[in-house]
Amino acid sequence: MYRTNTCGELRLADAGKQVILCGWLQKSRDLGGMTFIDLRDRYGLTQLAFNMEINAEICEKARKLGREYVLQITGLVKERENKNLQMPTGEIEISVTELIVLNEAKTPPFTIEDHTDGGDDLRMKYRYLDLRRSPVRNNILLRHKMAQQTRSYLDAQHFTEVETPVLIKSTPEGARDFVVPSRMNPGQFYALPQSPQTFKQLLMVAGLDRYYQIVKCFRDEDLRADRQPEFTQIDCEMSFVEQEDVLNMFEGLVKHLFLSVKGISIDAVPRMTYANAMEYYGSDKPDTRFDMRFVALNKPENNLVSGKGFKVFDEAELVVAICAKACANYTRKQLDELTDFVKRPQIGASGLVYARVNEDGTVKSSVDKFYDEVSLKKWAEACGAASNDLILILAGNAQKTRKAMNELRLEMGTRLGLRDKDNYACLWVLDFPLLEYSEEENRYFAMHHPFTAPKPEDISLLQSGQMGSVRANAYDLVINGVEVGGGSVRIFNKELQAQMFEVLGFTPEEAQNQFGFLMNAFEFGAPPHAGIAFGFDRLCSLFGGAESIRDFIAFPKNNSGRDVMIDGPSAIDEKQLTELHIALKK
Amino acid sequence: MYRTNTCGELRLADAGKQVILCGWLQKSRDLGGMTFIDLRDRYGLTQLAFNMEINAEICEKARKLGREYVLQITGLVKERENKNLQMPTGEIEISVTELIVLNEAKTPPFTIEDHTDGGDDLRMKYRYLDLRRSPVRNNILLRHKMAQQTRSYLDAQHFTEVETPVLIKSTPEGARDFVVPSRMNPGQFYALPQSPQTFKQLLMVAGLDRYYQIVKCFRDEDLRADRQPEFTQIDCEMSFVEQEDVLNMFEGLVKHLFLSVKGISIDAVPRMTYANAMEYYGSDKPDTRFDMRFVALNKPENNLVSGKGFKVFDEAELVVAICAKACANYTRKQLDELTDFVKRPQIGASGLVYARVNEDGTVKSSVDKFYDEVSLKKWAEACGAASNDLILILAGNAQKTRKAMNELRLEMGTRLGLRDKDNYACLWVLDFPLLEYSEEENRYFAMHHPFTAPKPEDISLLQSGQMGSVRANAYDLVINGVEVGGGSVRIFNKELQAQMFEVLGFTPEEAQNQFGFLMNAFEFGAPPHAGIAFGFDRLCSLFGGAESIRDFIAFPKNNSGRDVMIDGPSAIDEKQLTELHIALKK
Repeated sequence: MYRTNTCGELRLADAGKQVILCGWLQKSRDLGGMTFIDLRDRYGLTQLAFNMEINAEICEKARKLGREYVLQITGLVKERENKNLQMPTGEIEISVTELIVLNEAKTPPFTIEDHTDGGDDLRMKYRYLDLRRSPVRNNILLRHKMAQQTRSYLDAQHFTEVETPVLIKSTPEGARDFVVPSRMNPGQFYALPQSPQTFKQLLMVAGLDRYYQIVKCFRDEDLRADRQPEFTQIDCEMSFVEQEDVLNMFEGLVKHLFLSVKGISIDAVPRMTYANAMEYYGSDKPDTRFDMRFVALNKPENNLVSGKGFKVFDEAELVVAICAKACANYTRKQLDELTDFVKRPQIGASGLVYARVNEDGTVKSSVDKFYDEVSLKKWAEACGAASNDLILILAGNAQKTRKAMNELRLEMGTRLGLRDKDNYACLWVLDFPLLEYSEEENRYFAMHHPFTAPKPEDISLLQSGQMGSVRANAYDLVINGVEVGGGSVRIFNKELQAQMFEVLGFTPEEAQNQFGFLMNAFEFGAPPHAGIAFGFDRLCSLFGGAESIRDFIAFPKNNSGRDVMIDGPSAIDEKQLTELHIALKK
Repeated sequence: MYRTNTCGELRLADAGKQVILCGWLQKSRDLGGMTFIDLRDRYGLTQLAFNMEINAEICEKARKLGREYVLQITGLVKERENKNLQMPTGEIEISVTELIVLNEAKTPPFTIEDHTDGGDDLRMKYRYLDLRRSPVRNNILLRHKMAQQTRSYLDAQHFTEVETPVLIKSTPEGARDFVVPSRMNPGQFYALPQSPQTFKQLLMVAGLDRYYQIVKCFRDEDLRADRQPEFTQIDCEMSFVEQEDVLNMFEGLVKHLFLSVKGISIDAVPRMTYANAMEYYGSDKPDTRFDMRFVALNKPENNLVSGKGFKVFDEAELVVAICAKACANYTRKQLDELTDFVKRPQIGASGLVYARVNEDGTVKSSVDKFYDEVSLKKWAEACGAASNDLILILAGNAQKTRKAMNELRLEMGTRLGLRDKDNYACLWVLDFPLLEYSEEENRYFAMHHPFTAPKPEDISLLQSGQMGSVRANAYDLVINGVEVGGGSVRIFNKELQAQMFEVLGFTPEEAQNQFGFLMNAFEFGAPPHAGIAFGFDRLCSLFGGAESIRDFIAFPKNNSGRDVMIDGPSAIDEKQLTELHIALKK
């Protein structure tokens, strides 16, 4: 062993001990008579002291060392004169008697400090140096702890970890697969799994009863900040359970993670139907850290806006308001900013109507030309707006307006400081639609995946062709407006599964060709089963209080799917292509 | 929840309770007045009783159920009249009051019993049914426990689990890579990792200090029973350690696994140099459950065979013997079998010489024509052969003869019952050669991999061109003749690494192109580091007492790399090929 202790463990009680430490030179201060070095390893920092009077030779040597040199030192633990109580080792220093340079280091291209001067690209290229910085290292350690605690909970609940294959078969349904040409099977390709969905269902048919896996999955899609071509899921499946059992089991997991990793006790997770989430928040993943619910002003049974000559509202499918508490004093400039915000192409509203509730209870709006005080007071009442509140209103096509209002609500939440990253609001969203219609392809798609079970009471709708109204026993777990997990009760009956494939536009031959092994398996005694999968990268970033998942992946890829550190992907040679029975297309 | 209890948990103390169980119909016995069903789930079997007199309707229904039907039953726990103490639930049965068929089942293509009538191919095709059989299920549960205990040990030793990428860059050194065409980077390919070797070394440069991962790796090689295109490693790396530290740490892991998984206490693991392993056993992975060491009879300093006119021995580079205890009574037929065994092409010996030590101490050999009693007695003495022992001798080219004798020794071990699968002998093999010469390619290859450090005392040999004599700080863990793990101290110095690449025939440009990111990383302060990787599939199969790793993989592939259950790999459509910028070669 090169060392007796780490750089994070020595305390005042160790004073007088002879120790050997190893680590990287974080910082060096030359005060003439004394030289101090902060030595860093994964566990912490320890101050090394070199005294010109005691040992001039070693002190001279220490003065010449550069940042990030790898050192091994022998010395005596001493109580410090100037204690630094911010540092766990801040009461001691090492009086160094022996100094060995284990490795030199070129000056790093950016500073290895919590707040570095390195830009994103540079830090990605030298990821191994970026990982030396404690915020990045702490993310990786957090991820480890999250995985540990996930396993600890699921192991205790008798889940069995099973590794499913990575080299599988391509299925056209869903996102684009990464494929792997097979050398031994000319002209054929493996696919990398987008999820172990079919395998985990087969494990239920196999009687494994409770399965989990923390597993890499792959999607060849265009990338964004929070999407990576390879990502990790906590993948789970259970037999002989109903939706309620799955919700309880994984609510338990989330509570366990919050408590064991962050020391936070979470109450029972509230539940909301998809329909209500869309109505109240215009989103199937609402951020419920703050309320600010949507209020429709043009409900058929209580229309507060129509018939007053304001065409925009009269012709709108939906007129919807939110109430921003204590914002009546927003300036013209602030309101213009909000108008500009909702008119951005990605938000897509054509304008913003507002109404302020004054101190004295009177209401003043941007559409006073059309609406009198009585009408405006009714708006305020419907929105629960009191003195000094600001009502913001969007109107137009229902779906687009809800989407735009969702964005505006989040923007207001941010502006009002209602989205504190250290405050966590969890929510189950239930009863998702089973199918989504694609105008483009002129057919229904499975919203979750083709194995999701319709709600028993809605199966008749499926049979009578009211496809869009069929609800599924499908659920998402949303935390702070981020979808961290989703799952469903599965179809376990061969006939219903065949019917689903038919609805999705598969011919029986296509269904057999792609999912035959699963449908065949269902003939041999499939149990009722249900499952869920969590986006592990996203869950970690949420627990780490960050927006991007990249910082929680040791070696992430950029938006072109490249690893700039290893400079991959790369060309391969002709011989290899020939062996794989493929050629490049010019 | 569909059930109140599992099929493995009810005991006599539960008698009188009303319970709901779910599971598969394992077996049904219709005795006229009574019908009994064994209901199975992952946790066990419970007997269900249906009584014609008590409830004729339900009894009639029960009689009609087929094997593997999925049932939900409600009933009363009762003490059995005919107890089966072999079964944990054998003292009770359930008097069924309600019976629901959750799913029907076609008759399975083979019996779901410990000893099934299904052949390999059929069981692979219906793997989800094979997994219902308890021996196969137990293998998967054993694997889960192995993973759990591995993590538990390494977590306690402050190892951090880090996920390394699956989509990486192809490197020509080593085995053949699986590759993945990149849609976003036309003409370029990702490779699937053969191991996370370079990434774990970069994690050491990053200061992670102790890393592990239970990780899928990929090799596109021709397959055998114990090789799969995707396999799992326990991959580990440590910083600021020497070989001794790694050996101790992972000896600890192996002891922990034996104790926690099998309840076996393992003594300190013996160590042997590669040179000695080759000399004593003709193998770098000797089965040390039994001794039967090689004895060279033509040592230059003590040649017991030459000069007696027997050309085969006179001209042999090596004449080597083993002593089979108490086998002097082997019949002509048995000796012929052994001769045939060594002459098989894959063994490659040209013949077998034997000498029996008779009851009275006289020695009788198959080469009595050339050797007198005095000579033969010297052989017996050298071999430690006593009365009734049989000496078996092979001769020829040293390397080939050692290899053949290794096979003969293992064969004798098997014949003599010395290789009990419930007896475990662990061994560290140390000081592997750094380089191997390939006659075919006329150059040296790294025996372990190009990052392995030579022993410091042998570096001068590297510099003076005696490449074949350089020993590495490389080690393998061998259990019962199976290499279950291997690793090395790594080079952490850029110059030495560059020198290694030169020895391996890389131009500086090739080295930079393929491993530049690692060599560059070494310029920024690489710590001394070392690591090891265990073949997890093989370790599981060894703990499970089986020869093949396939039974310990939930969904294995066959020798053509096919998953016959999902029928993959498969053709993909033209559109997909075009998107990936590739075409099939006709």
